[in-house]
Amino acid sequence: MYEVRTDLALEAREKFEEDNVEIKGVRLEEEEVAGDIKIVKVVIETENGAKAMGKPRGTYITLEAPNMIDEDEDYHREISEQLARMLASLLPEGSKDMSVLVVGLGNREVTPDALGPNVIDNIMITRHIIKEFGTYALGEEHTRKISGIVPGVMAQTGMESEEIIKGVVEETNPDCIIVVDALAARSTKRLNRTIQITDTGINPGSGVGNHRHAINQEAMGVPVIAIGIPTVVDAATIVTDTMSDLIGAMAESSRLKGLGGTLETLDEMEKYELIRELLSPHLNAFFVTPKDIDEAVKRLSYTISEGLNMTFSGSFFKQA
Amino acid sequence: MYEVRTDLALEAREKFEEDNVEIKGVRLEEEEVAGDIKIVKVVIETENGAKAMGKPRGTYITLEAPNMIDEDEDYHREISEQLARMLASLLPEGSKDMSVLVVGLGNREVTPDALGPNVIDNIMITRHIIKEFGTYALGEEHTRKISGIVPGVMAQTGMESEEIIKGVVEETNPDCIIVVDALAARSTKRLNRTIQITDTGINPGSGVGNHRHAINQEAMGVPVIAIGIPTVVDAATIVTDTMSDLIGAMAESSRLKGLGGTLETLDEMEKYELIRELLSPHLNAFFVTPKDIDEAVKRLSYTISEGLNMTFSGSFFKQA
Amino acid sequence: MYEVRTDLALEAREKFEEDNVEIKGVRLEEEEVAGDIKIVKVVIETENGAKAMGKPRGTYITLEAPNMIDEDEDYHREISEQLARMLASLLPEGSKDMSVLVVGLGNREVTPDALGPNVIDNIMITRHIIKEFGTYALGEEHTRKISGIVPGVMAQTGMESEEIIKGVVEETNPDCIIVVDALAARSTKRLNRTIQITDTGINPGSGVGNHRHAINQEAMGVPVIAIGIPTVVDAATIVTDTMSDLIGAMAESSRLKGLGGTLETLDEMEKYELIRELLSPHLNAFFVTPKDIDEAVKRLSYTISEGLNMTFSGSFFKQA
Amino acid sequence: MYEVRTDLALEAREKFEEDNVEIKGVRLEEEEVAGDIKIVKVVIETENGAKAMGKPRGTYITLEAPNMIDEDEDYHREISEQLARMLASLLPEGSKDMSVLVVGLGNREVTPDALGPNVIDNIMITRHIIKEFGTYALGEEHTRKISGIVPGVMAQTGMESEEIIKGVVEETNPDCIIVVDALAARSTKRLNRTIQITDTGINPGSGVGNHRHAINQEAMGVPVIAIGIPTVVDAATIVTDTMSDLIGAMAESSRLKGLGGTLETLDEMEKYELIRELLSPHLNAFFVTPKDIDEAVKRLSYTISEGLNMTFSGSFFKQA
Repeated sequence: MYEVRTDLALEAREKFEEDNVEIKGVRLEEEEVAGDIKIVKVVIETENGAKAMGKPRGTYITLEAPNMIDEDEDYHREISEQLARMLASLLPEGSKDMSVLVVGLGNREVTPDALGPNVIDNIMITRHIIKEFGTYALGEEHTRKISGIVPGVMAQTGMESEEIIKGVVEETNPDCIIVVDALAARSTKRLNRTIQITDTGINPGSGVGNHRHAINQEAMGVPVIAIGIPTVVDAATIVTDTMSDLIGAMAESSRLKGLGGTLETLDEMEKYELIRELLSPHLNAFFVTPKDIDEAVKRLSYTISEGLNMTFSGSFFKQA
Repeated sequence: MYEVRTDLALEAREKFEEDNVEIKGVRLEEEEVAGDIKIVKVVIETENGAKAMGKPRGTYITLEAPNMIDEDEDYHREISEQLARMLASLLPEGSKDMSVLVVGLGNREVTPDALGPNVIDNIMITRHIIKEFGTYALGEEHTRKISGIVPGVMAQTGMESEEIIKGVVEETNPDCIIVVDALAARSTKRLNRTIQITDTGINPGSGVGNHRHAINQEAMGVPVIAIGIPTVVDAATIVTDTMSDLIGAMAESSRLKGLGGTLETLDEMEKYELIRELLSPHLNAFFVTPKDIDEAVKRLSYTISEGLNMTFSGSFFKQA
Repeated sequence: MYEVRTDLALEAREKFEEDNVEIKGVRLEEEEVAGDIKIVKVVIETENGAKAMGKPRGTYITLEAPNMIDEDEDYHREISEQLARMLASLLPEGSKDMSVLVVGLGNREVTPDALGPNVIDNIMITRHIIKEFGTYALGEEHTRKISGIVPGVMAQTGMESEEIIKGVVEETNPDCIIVVDALAARSTKRLNRTIQITDTGINPGSGVGNHRHAINQEAMGVPVIAIGIPTVVDAATIVTDTMSDLIGAMAESSRLKGLGGTLETLDEMEKYELIRELLSPHLNAFFVTPKDIDEAVKRLSYTISEGLNMTFSGSFFKQA
Repeated sequence: MYEVRTDLALEAREKFEEDNVEIKGVRLEEEEVAGDIKIVKVVIETENGAKAMGKPRGTYITLEAPNMIDEDEDYHREISEQLARMLASLLPEGSKDMSVLVVGLGNREVTPDALGPNVIDNIMITRHIIKEFGTYALGEEHTRKISGIVPGVMAQTGMESEEIIKGVVEETNPDCIIVVDALAARSTKRLNRTIQITDTGINPGSGVGNHRHAINQEAMGVPVIAIGIPTVVDAATIVTDTMSDLIGAMAESSRLKGLGGTLETLDEMEKYELIRELLSPHLNAFFVTPKDIDEAVKRLSYTISEGLNMTFSGSFFKQA
């Protein structure tokens, strides 16, 4: 089966819908909330489900808001609120003095990859103040010890993000970790319009080509929540999809009827082999991103950082 | 005829080679120089040539160096030297006290578009010093009054780059203008490997979708040299090209022989219409760029700024 | 008389209060508003007043808010509102389609000087959209054509900011100009706590050492409002002030009584000459700024940009 | 004794020279090298020496080059070479496959504090490549595994730099650490003109006000070399020094003879108490830095990063 690169569980799930396949061990819940926001929860409950989806067991919550990238008074407070609500549902029960390490993955120098670092710039960091002056130094709203780090990318540091984070975790002992990262989607239509929140952390797929190691509870020893927004599509994906459409169109074209007939005799496997042969392997070194990505990343990073600040200030937390 | 978006005259010319068409009024000169650098000069001599090429009359010099983006001791001095030599051949004869305004077009916040602004950060600015302390304030090497500006993009300023530059030119009266800009290529293989230098300035094609006005001698009243490096390919272009390859492959495939036969009955026009129908129009809002674009732009902007500094310090100038 | 460097009319005025001098032609109005904000209006009404104050005739409004730099939910909306109210009182009567050019003076690379550039990053730019799609393209709230520019500093461009702005004004014909700049105060206690708004534009004092030319109505041909926040104190000023305190303390010291007596025989002139002799002239090349200037400039630039956005969206404008 | 804040061992030593005091256990060596560079080595050999100097035992090498901040062809290669030579003399004997972690301390957002982060941007990072492809992947010159990190400051991360670095060291096990940091000098004349290299790491003085913990061999378990350039003077220091000059001048003034006599009866202690009383404590929150600090930090960070690159590429290393 031709493997499509997507970091979104929602898109991995949709592939099966297209093929009218049901997947055991994968549960879907949908919810519409005010502000034209759609929330889809994909829960992978079994190892079989995980294998079929190509993603580890756990909960993947997707917020879709078509107007997420439109200019707003400031940063789409209603989306930040839903993000805070969803995030709180995945976080461990939060005692008033729990500590959270927020990690901004990605490369600050590459616009669509700067989402994580930008988020760290705008969250309210409190750990050092509470450590020095006590839990109520900042008022009743800010009793949780929040720390943040931007580990950078391997070309800049020579180290895996996972090595840096693990070291920091061992030295500072947070109760949980929240990782923010820019994602790759399969469809350009999802770019900058979707937030995924998952309790499975970061789990780079096999064969994806990047050598990021897992940043999850198993590796870190504490719960890891990952928040991501797709900001790029792999160049190979966009080309594959359009070629697939072309073959489909030929099969249906009246003008190209005979041709369509011939193509229909190709099975899926043969079609994808044809495409793969034509795909320059060097396309793997390229990504596709919207021309207004600078404005989008700037606005989206506020939406996330405000959602995090709301979460940490406590109103959305389950109290221990 | 389906129009392919490229800012490179060399690529516009190549299209005709593919089609075995000769173009009257377009002259080609090639030169190999040390350091594995290939220099191609395309001279559009007549209005007919201009029409065929879709570019205004003038000289377009292309430096191709496959190792341009490889890491070097610092910034590929040998390429900077060739750039300085070519640039001097296009500049008006330079008296010792001529003044040059260097313009860094593009969006500093979008990595592949930051080339122009980055170049301005590293050229030696002398106008204010020479204006205050005289021609020899900086020694015999730096007698030319160099000024620089980064006008920003319309979404940031609300103004055309051309309006800003024209105003600055009218106030400060430079003898000539050098504009540095990131370009769009047709082929991903040219990205970050090619420098184009032209005496025609910046002339946005019709229908390209951006509303940049011309920045050329006619608009500005003084000679305008443009230096550019392709850092992106339009998403539509990359998809079109691969689909075109797919159709070609089908026509040749032994497995798909009948199909090939059918396809061969389609003329160019029909093929492109088929492709155009399938192309999402929203692809125009996307670009394709290499994953290591941050390192590439950083290094390439040094190659250009050093070439400019060499040019201005005089050793490459024709003396008046 | 020893000249003290301050960009704040309020501080220039206070000097006379210390000396118990009344100044003809200078009127003072004070107002306390909600949110612990104090508004002082200094109106220089005559040429004599201008001479005494060392500042041109016009209105200088100062907003003082001691908590301006404290961390807030986001950016001190109440201060932005007062800024918008004051700004509207100085702006020409604003027809619904007036056009405003906002200029961010200063050096983006030097933290306390980055205030102006940062403000431009966050104002809502509309000119290009309204020019293309008409007055109501953005809804009834955004009918004014707002453009913005960051001219950079002379070491980066080789040009006076004034030359660049004048050129842009001539090409784009705004109805008025708003210039945002970081200022120098006399007292470190005012840094980051005061906003000055004036209809006199930017008028560099004689002997200040920088060669900025005036950016005012006379130079530009349209009204120029300047908004500034003091973020630095000249190193020479801070040293002068403390030496002056030292001499004062000696005069009062019981231990140093005789010494005090001797010092009292020095008149102001002699005191300042003593200080001036001791002051290293190279101190003019240094400035003093708070250690947390990065956070302060980030927050203050939002306070100003939000004030500008409120002003432009119309609710604070006098309607023509 | 009034404590003067300086990070430079050379300045701590000079204080004693002024006072004509000899310090046991502190050895001085001077060397003049080509390019108008003066090298001073201060070796603190005993605990007594350490106590007198207020700095731990170890070697402090200072490179002084008055033209270090002048604009050069690029970055003062001759200074980088001396830096590489000195650095190699302090590094542990370097086997061909040793690993080095380079740390850029400081705040990227505050211009004079951005030295360390800027250096990391320009060193050649090799650890990830050598780890994946072996010692000779990059040629014989680059066999050492270089990694780099910018830990940020406590207000941004909520963590001590020391905690982050220690964690990273434990995960990645470098053979030694090089820390680059901007320093505070006592004299403005030293700013941007001096490089200090020491094998004692970073050892924040008691009472300095910042809560940085030590980053040295004891804390990290491997040798720590610190490289620093003074880019700021504490505001309190500059004021203290000028007041001290004022008192001195009064004592010598013929006009103020009687006064001078009186002042001479004050001992050092009394003088400094007088000054301390007058010094606003809030001055501790301010620093003094040159107006052209952006250009200086940009150029100096190249001088250091090139020195590091030379060191790592091996020609300056003692071979094991």
